[in-house]
Amino acid sequence: MPVELTLTALPGIPLVQAGDDLPELIIASLERIPLRLVDGDVVVLAQKIVSKAEGRRVDLNTVVPGSEALNLAEETGKDARLLHVILGESAGVVRSRPGLVIVEHKLGFICANAGVDHSNVSGHPDGDWVLLLPEDPDASASRMRSALENHFHARLGVLVIDSHGRAWRNGTVGVAIGVAGFPAVLDLRGEPDLYGDALRVTQVGAADELAAAASIVMGQAGEGRPAVLARGWPYSLGEGSLKDILRPEEMDLFR
Amino acid sequence: MPVELTLTALPGIPLVQAGDDLPELIIASLERIPLRLVDGDVVVLAQKIVSKAEGRRVDLNTVVPGSEALNLAEETGKDARLLHVILGESAGVVRSRPGLVIVEHKLGFICANAGVDHSNVSGHPDGDWVLLLPEDPDASASRMRSALENHFHARLGVLVIDSHGRAWRNGTVGVAIGVAGFPAVLDLRGEPDLYGDALRVTQVGAADELAAAASIVMGQAGEGRPAVLARGWPYSLGEGSLKDILRPEEMDLFR
Repeated sequence: MPVELTLTALPGIPLVQAGDDLPELIIASLERIPLRLVDGDVVVLAQKIVSKAEGRRVDLNTVVPGSEALNLAEETGKDARLLHVILGESAGVVRSRPGLVIVEHKLGFICANAGVDHSNVSGHPDGDWVLLLPEDPDASASRMRSALENHFHARLGVLVIDSHGRAWRNGTVGVAIGVAGFPAVLDLRGEPDLYGDALRVTQVGAADELAAAASIVMGQAGEGRPAVLARGWPYSLGEGSLKDILRPEEMDLFR
Repeated sequence: MPVELTLTALPGIPLVQAGDDLPELIIASLERIPLRLVDGDVVVLAQKIVSKAEGRRVDLNTVVPGSEALNLAEETGKDARLLHVILGESAGVVRSRPGLVIVEHKLGFICANAGVDHSNVSGHPDGDWVLLLPEDPDASASRMRSALENHFHARLGVLVIDSHGRAWRNGTVGVAIGVAGFPAVLDLRGEPDLYGDALRVTQVGAADELAAAASIVMGQAGEGRPAVLARGWPYSLGEGSLKDILRPEEMDLFR
């Protein structure tokens, strides 16, 4: 049988509200197909539904920007209140220019706007809401994993993903920001190539590749298809963490 | 029916030699499954089999390194002959340090070693061979597309992919270096989000996301599964090129 990976968008997941039981929504969707999770399945969640369930929204009308945000607003032309929220989520600004703020997020990765999102958060007439990333996406993934493993009695992986821009290349791609039960980076060091030579490519961004794959079927229009089942992952599952993916600053030539 | 994307490694593709008819090998593999390509299918090819079929190998024993390669060898500790080949494939060195050379490839993208590969090229006892990237991967993809479209009478996409390291994040991921009949970057500008607000994320790295997805089922051990069929791409096909993916230097904050 050929090696085959299938990415299935889970249907019928409703708009998520703070306090919703996400595992219950995933299980209900799987029953709708119907599909039972089995050993080796990986569930990929868009950051947005995780953040919403965790109540990670902020009303910009309640934000009083500090001096750093005001200065950055002057430079970039962006909303000072939004920048105040972004700076609160960041360890530091990496690059900025008109219209663009790239930061090191408190969680350790480099991304635009600290992942703070203004789209698909409206629909609340009583405010000007933005959505922050989950506070601890590894922990979010881990809670989902436990709930699904208990329900299906199977060994599963869970990813929480977002879309990031990149250096050098146009277009955003899905990347993992939270990992549970899944090898974030796959170490193929020492495996021989076809001729028995040691492989030179040693570390594969496994979670990021699967995040990109899932991102394709999620689409970009927000919560339409915010959860994806990946079946047929051709390697073993394992334990992993966002931390495995983050290159230490002193090893990074591009900050 | 749920949105579903399936990535199938094409079985039984032999070790490729210079001059081999790649479309013929792909068609033979598809017949082995058996599977007929249909409108919207995308065939993803590992750079390595394209380069081999195009005879893009160089025997390091025939290379006399110039002064730039000798200087870079001193700095990085790498083989001066290999560096001479890398420099010949490059528009310039972006970063270097012991053990590492990151260049702008002549084709326009940033990557380590100009994509010159030492692994899986041995098996030729009469030399010390390395493999260059295809001379024009868009053209390679285009030739494959024409051959497959003529054979299957279907509208198809083709990607030629490689694995690249990235700024900030550990692990390589599959990226597109050649595109035919496929929207390299998907422009979602203007499409409303769930609440009717304009989407802020406008450009999706479609070809790179599909490259990453295909890379998962290819694995890393060279030519074992060097071609993948992607079925269920949820957007329209279109015309695209590597050039669409390359961020112009003056727009890039990370060189």
